[in-house]
Amino acid sequence: MYCGICHSDLHLAKNEWGFTHYPLIPGHEIVGVVTEVGSKVEKYTIGDKVGVGCLVGSCRECEQCTSNEESYCPKQVLSINGRYYDGTITCGGFSNIMSPLRRFGLDKPGVKVGVVGLGGIGHLTVKFAKALGSKVTVISTSANKKEEAIETFGADEFIVSHDTEQMAAATGTLDGIIDTVSANHSLVSLVNLLKPHGKLILVGLPQRLEVPIFPMALGGKSIVGTASGGVKETQEMVEFAAQHKILPDIEIVPMDYVNTAMERLERGDVKYRFVVDVANSIKIE
Amino acid sequence: MYCGICHSDLHLAKNEWGFTHYPLIPGHEIVGVVTEVGSKVEKYTIGDKVGVGCLVGSCRECEQCTSNEESYCPKQVLSINGRYYDGTITCGGFSNIMSPLRRFGLDKPGVKVGVVGLGGIGHLTVKFAKALGSKVTVISTSANKKEEAIETFGADEFIVSHDTEQMAAATGTLDGIIDTVSANHSLVSLVNLLKPHGKLILVGLPQRLEVPIFPMALGGKSIVGTASGGVKETQEMVEFAAQHKILPDIEIVPMDYVNTAMERLERGDVKYRFVVDVANSIKIE
Repeated sequence: MYCGICHSDLHLAKNEWGFTHYPLIPGHEIVGVVTEVGSKVEKYTIGDKVGVGCLVGSCRECEQCTSNEESYCPKQVLSINGRYYDGTITCGGFSNIMSPLRRFGLDKPGVKVGVVGLGGIGHLTVKFAKALGSKVTVISTSANKKEEAIETFGADEFIVSHDTEQMAAATGTLDGIIDTVSANHSLVSLVNLLKPHGKLILVGLPQRLEVPIFPMALGGKSIVGTASGGVKETQEMVEFAAQHKILPDIEIVPMDYVNTAMERLERGDVKYRFVVDVANSIKIE
Repeated sequence: MYCGICHSDLHLAKNEWGFTHYPLIPGHEIVGVVTEVGSKVEKYTIGDKVGVGCLVGSCRECEQCTSNEESYCPKQVLSINGRYYDGTITCGGFSNIMSPLRRFGLDKPGVKVGVVGLGGIGHLTVKFAKALGSKVTVISTSANKKEEAIETFGADEFIVSHDTEQMAAATGTLDGIIDTVSANHSLVSLVNLLKPHGKLILVGLPQRLEVPIFPMALGGKSIVGTASGGVKETQEMVEFAAQHKILPDIEIVPMDYVNTAMERLERGDVKYRFVVDVANSIKIE
């Protein structure tokens, strides 16, 4: 069994979102192998590889649930830190990635997508967008990620976000932007990169962001919030990833390395996701 | 000849948006009667009633111009205060009203639209939305506007924005909201009124607004900027208004009343738009 940790876990551990219930075990994006099944289980058998998404329950009756949008059910139950958690936010994770690209038409040849932040979600967004056929521009604070972004992940362009000349040259060129950054940051310069009616899609969860009203009004642009995908979308994404061999770049660490991993995560020192090897770290009797 | 004045003129007069060029004559939304035509004019004859929109020029060649979206042309020229003005924002005005209702599917029976602020644009938005068949909920700070909103303008519901019980009762009920308020205000409670994937459409131009990230993410909701409509949309709106007898509620004042009008505007003391009677106030030789 493996479990990812990311910036959402940092926010939770420090109660930066204001709804943490201690004690708390950071970690989500759980995968493992089925070791036992009950008598009524039909879909899974022993040995199957399975994942646990952010979403673990919903009412199954509302307009959202009946249209495969369980992740927008007002009664959704989210898995965070290995226990149920009502009415709060999911940590993000894999299931966010393909859903907004598809929902907003950013999943086809000819479409130009920006990806802000080349971290755990960012590097996977680049891989998914490329596999879907879009043109991808990475916007990052770290100039030293350019080579990997283009040569390893297949991005078409790379912009250093604090390079005003590069940013100015890309003004009005993107159909949509997936912003994966969880730290507070300015949205004005990102909105300026969009074409008229373009969408800035927030996948990260920064606490303070300001609406850049003038560029939004002049360009008819939107800022869009997204939760994780529904069950159907998540399954489709997993199948798409398998088919296109889209894998995350990860660093596997034992459980007792978690504190160090959290510190490294905070200073951006990870390529690109820490994954805790739970099964080999602990024995549950 | 008549000319409207609204909160945008206040912002401009005080340079609150930071791009005012003095000297400045506040006022826009100009209407008048054609008194003379040149030899090449085909569309208008002497005696025609005409209006001057926010938009008075565009490149006529770009993707936006060739799809009747001149108001999103990056080279648009806007009329503010009787002179051309490059690269800055329109004052809003009539042409904003029908465009977002149509663009975001808020123009049909069964759809529930919120209108925030019952001022110059707000009261007309209610009239347009009702004429288009939508259900309309007015959200206002002024409880004393309820009777007029419902009985005169035809709104279906009225919520006082600082009444937390009324706001809570309306949670998740609106498909979209047209927010006409130009003063800084909190968006969280408005986003909470939206159904999942609902859109909060900003028609006013407040300087400081914060993105309410958690309710946006959990509900997959958007904040949308809008400029005025294009030429075709504006003409359609004028024709629709004529056909459905949609008229603004105005107070006509002479030119030398402008300073008083601006003061009254600032404290919300107008029902619902000041209109300056230019022709009867001045003589141009």
